[in-house]
Amino acid sequence: MNLKKIEKFIRKQKVSFITSIDEKNYPLVKAMLMPRKIIGLKEFYFSTNTSSMRVAQYRNNPNASIYFYQKKLFNYIGVMLTGKMEVITDQEIKNMIWEKGDTIYYKKGVTDPDYCVLKFTASEGRYYHNLKTESFTLT
Amino acid sequence: MNLKKIEKFIRKQKVSFITSIDEKNYPLVKAMLMPRKIIGLKEFYFSTNTSSMRVAQYRNNPNASIYFYQKKLFNYIGVMLTGKMEVITDQEIKNMIWEKGDTIYYKKGVTDPDYCVLKFTASEGRYYHNLKTESFTLT
Repeated sequence: MNLKKIEKFIRKQKVSFITSIDEKNYPLVKAMLMPRKIIGLKEFYFSTNTSSMRVAQYRNNPNASIYFYQKKLFNYIGVMLTGKMEVITDQEIKNMIWEKGDTIYYKKGVTDPDYCVLKFTASEGRYYHNLKTESFTLT
Repeated sequence: MNLKKIEKFIRKQKVSFITSIDEKNYPLVKAMLMPRKIIGLKEFYFSTNTSSMRVAQYRNNPNASIYFYQKKLFNYIGVMLTGKMEVITDQEIKNMIWEKGDTIYYKKGVTDPDYCVLKFTASEGRYYHNLKTESFTLT
């Protein structure tokens, strides 16, 4: 298994899925736009609403996974990374991943208090392809 | 919000996502084929391998969610249902959802001990559409 190939696969996707654990200890999942910034297979930065349910959940329990998948004719490729999700309101990092069109979601612009960043740091991964699963560790 | 419309949306999808909580208390997610049988918005039957990681996790912690989504041009529709996942090895239920082509995955056929059924029973749901979220309860 080639971690560079997995990273390339992730970068080609158009949607990601993020999971969290809620206050009643249920696992939840949500489709998200792709991360705004990806550093290796290690750090993933998403933009989101500070007021969202997920932000409250990650502040309470940072355990998370993120998932990317692509359906093929008789099969699919999936990559799941598990790790920790941090809620970041630091203005420098908010500036870093801001994009012009974001005012559609955050009326007050890059300093909008309802705009924040979710930073996911991966520690382990699983790669599904051709009905097989391979696990890997990220250090 | 119309629960019949949500059920219709789910039945049109080609892939589903199931979440679980692992032994280290991390939320995990996996793409699955669509459920073999759906009863209302309440019961969902999936086929899977008895030996799989997910089966062990659900036996340990039945808390789960299942998710269906469809990407649109500028938006997406998503339905998440939370509830309990049961691992079923009862032969009658295994017979009920068996399909001819399944011998590809389970060489010994419908009585293959590695073939089992995951039955998800929903208690709550969330419906995402047009950047809005609506919650509902299933009784």
